[in-house]
Amino acid sequence: MTDERRGNGVPATSPLTVPQSLPAAPLPTLRPSLALLTDRYELTMLAAALADGTAHRHCVFEVFTRRLPAGRRYGVLAGTGRVLEALAAFRFGDAELGFLERHRVVDDRTLDFLRGFRFTGTITGYAEGETFFPGSPVLQVEGTFAEAVLLETLVLSILNHDSAVASAASRMTSAAVDRPVMEMGSRRTHEQAAVAAARAAVVGGFVGTSNLEAGYRYGLETIGTAAHAFTMLHDDEASAFASQVAWHGVGTTLLVDTYDVRRGVERAIEAGGTGLGAVRLDSGDLGAMAIEVRAQLDELGATGTKVVVTSDLDEHAIAGLAAAPVDSYGVGTSLVTGSGAPTCGMVYKLVARSDAAGRMQPVAKASAHKSDRGGRKAAARRLDEDGRALEEVLYTGPDEDVVAWEPRAGGSGDDGGRLRPLHVPLVTDGATDSRWVGAYGVQNAAERHASSRGELPRGARRLSAGDPAIPTVVESLD
Amino acid sequence: MTDERRGNGVPATSPLTVPQSLPAAPLPTLRPSLALLTDRYELTMLAAALADGTAHRHCVFEVFTRRLPAGRRYGVLAGTGRVLEALAAFRFGDAELGFLERHRVVDDRTLDFLRGFRFTGTITGYAEGETFFPGSPVLQVEGTFAEAVLLETLVLSILNHDSAVASAASRMTSAAVDRPVMEMGSRRTHEQAAVAAARAAVVGGFVGTSNLEAGYRYGLETIGTAAHAFTMLHDDEASAFASQVAWHGVGTTLLVDTYDVRRGVERAIEAGGTGLGAVRLDSGDLGAMAIEVRAQLDELGATGTKVVVTSDLDEHAIAGLAAAPVDSYGVGTSLVTGSGAPTCGMVYKLVARSDAAGRMQPVAKASAHKSDRGGRKAAARRLDEDGRALEEVLYTGPDEDVVAWEPRAGGSGDDGGRLRPLHVPLVTDGATDSRWVGAYGVQNAAERHASSRGELPRGARRLSAGDPAIPTVVESLD
Repeated sequence: MTDERRGNGVPATSPLTVPQSLPAAPLPTLRPSLALLTDRYELTMLAAALADGTAHRHCVFEVFTRRLPAGRRYGVLAGTGRVLEALAAFRFGDAELGFLERHRVVDDRTLDFLRGFRFTGTITGYAEGETFFPGSPVLQVEGTFAEAVLLETLVLSILNHDSAVASAASRMTSAAVDRPVMEMGSRRTHEQAAVAAARAAVVGGFVGTSNLEAGYRYGLETIGTAAHAFTMLHDDEASAFASQVAWHGVGTTLLVDTYDVRRGVERAIEAGGTGLGAVRLDSGDLGAMAIEVRAQLDELGATGTKVVVTSDLDEHAIAGLAAAPVDSYGVGTSLVTGSGAPTCGMVYKLVARSDAAGRMQPVAKASAHKSDRGGRKAAARRLDEDGRALEEVLYTGPDEDVVAWEPRAGGSGDDGGRLRPLHVPLVTDGATDSRWVGAYGVQNAAERHASSRGELPRGARRLSAGDPAIPTVVESLD
Repeated sequence: MTDERRGNGVPATSPLTVPQSLPAAPLPTLRPSLALLTDRYELTMLAAALADGTAHRHCVFEVFTRRLPAGRRYGVLAGTGRVLEALAAFRFGDAELGFLERHRVVDDRTLDFLRGFRFTGTITGYAEGETFFPGSPVLQVEGTFAEAVLLETLVLSILNHDSAVASAASRMTSAAVDRPVMEMGSRRTHEQAAVAAARAAVVGGFVGTSNLEAGYRYGLETIGTAAHAFTMLHDDEASAFASQVAWHGVGTTLLVDTYDVRRGVERAIEAGGTGLGAVRLDSGDLGAMAIEVRAQLDELGATGTKVVVTSDLDEHAIAGLAAAPVDSYGVGTSLVTGSGAPTCGMVYKLVARSDAAGRMQPVAKASAHKSDRGGRKAAARRLDEDGRALEEVLYTGPDEDVVAWEPRAGGSGDDGGRLRPLHVPLVTDGATDSRWVGAYGVQNAAERHASSRGELPRGARRLSAGDPAIPTVVESLD
């Protein structure tokens, strides 16, 4: 044992290890391996378990949340596709192993294990886009302790972030009813989180994003024309508008509130004619201004020119504009920060593991305030005869019975209602199902979300605070 | 003009462009170029400005916030080093150009410009770690409109995220006084944001992080030993503790609240002896439990064994534990989500540009609710004779006078107090100052922050809501 390893609970030394000489060039900001996007303790637990032999015990970890953010009626699962994409980049190469060795994070036996690491287990989960409730087992990771514990941090980072954004997005698109909502929040969040946020927004029903990288990676529609800087770059608003129309065509959206909105709208129609695509309002009392601008556009004969609004919107502001003559919404800050709930409380918990005799045993933390239910769960949504969700049903019992659970023929439950099973295979013995990754994955998730949200009781879409839209019940298969 | 370009304000088509065939493998999750981490409108403004000739006008953009989050006394600038690192990766390669061409985001002239793009301008700013106030010009980007507008989204993403985290971190380390605070929030935020959050936490005074990638990239101390899963993996708590002590040594931190804390502490000392490094509490009433556990440890003779607490802490909870026998804190969710303020409201505004005759002209948006002051600003902190901050002074006036501004000899202001200039050179004619990047950059920022926070009036460190610790005043050099 080295001194450094002994002291790793509470560092006694300076927080900073500064190289002896200045680097010749800036450090790389991104690296192809995602393996170190991991809490140190995942690796030290692995090391100790490899040393005592428990690392090879068969384990089931479940991802779930104990509660929804205060007042929320449902959550939206997002990021599953990104988890699967990340798995392929979860590799320990020379750079990662060298770091772990240099800092004595783990021992040689563990380095050997990590050098060849590929996840060979099985991942099952709710389809991306599915709504979830307290206790919903949205992801199950099954494999040896060694391979399953390694994924904890990365899986939670992705699901907690993306689901927080998708959950907010869904409320916004609910509030907007059939008006399109566009994502413009890249500048308000970490530059890579912005790409994931754009993706999650589309899962939640947004129709496009300003983020080009999200367009590149996931085939999302990208949008945007000009900012105030473009107007101010020019000698006057008229020449800025003329330039924009010359380049974009008359279908463009002109930002009319740099100086005076009424004059801006006049100049916009002077520049683009009555066939101008849209004007955008980015400040002030959007409801009152939209009414004035709509009337002015109609007076000028620009009856087809749309009104886009984009200033500090959230689901409540969108709902407040329902009666205003607004054609579409652009949302930034509140989307990427989860509209008051910037992360989900999802946890990654060991719920079952084999014992020394190889039998699966349920396990659970038992101390105050955080009692969880041990054992693997099957999950289904119980629907009434009209296909409306009634409750989230979790099945527990002997592990083999839970694994084998499926609804009776025809999908009917005991009460004559219908049971919709919620788990789908994502990774089987290390092989990823490609339906859930890339652009297809996003499309499938957006469709799943629209369908799942449509199935919820009507009250689920209210923005006011309330209980989860459906209760979570546990049924025993014993 | 293509149809797609005309319609880019409000997409009429499906949000999703799905490839005709399934990809053979998951899409890459990260790419070496950061150039597309950019709002589409930055590129379309560039295209229109290249077409009309204004793209080559000399411009100054300033980054500032109009207000601090409600009740906050100061903000902490973080991310500057990451901006400089990102500049080196802001390149348009074949993949990026192909995407922009395929989707007709820009025209051929713009593609030609982007192909060879390197930022050749100048960036000046507050040193990373510096405290800031409403209006503080924390970054100034100077160059042609073309090169400066391109950076807007990426610069704001980085500074808004990292500064939000560092600002929260500083409040937490203030509340902890001289007890160490460690960052453990990776699982509650986007996986790459987690690395930046760990870095920003250290800028704000944290002593270490659980995030291994942050250790790798920035030389930060990494910490962590084991989670509840490790205890539950084993047949009982005693064998889990024995295994951990065998691998880590007795200096390790044992997590004692998986089942029963009192029994957990007993077993911890049985496993590690009275020389055990620390026990960790991760649930329940931490203050009351810390008192009980401390007493129990002392009774058992483990007077040197430390008590680490880690459950849902924020600056208020840390302050509430000031009288409890706690040795260090681990903070997760509230750190990475900015403790209620997950993003800063920093904006990137064109404040001056050359006119057709080549003279620099101040510009500003003038419409309701968002009136900004045009023109480049110099900035200094006015200090009293004891070196205590009195006010943030911004100097405006003719551009050449602002550029030339410096305090009088000896740094004294008109009133006999001292003026500490706040701007430092970061990039000069495209060349980055390496003091601000990599591990050195983080160390310098942490030192700057400690020094800057120490200079603020005593009330600045109160956690209760209040006004900014010092006022921002504007002085004219006319």
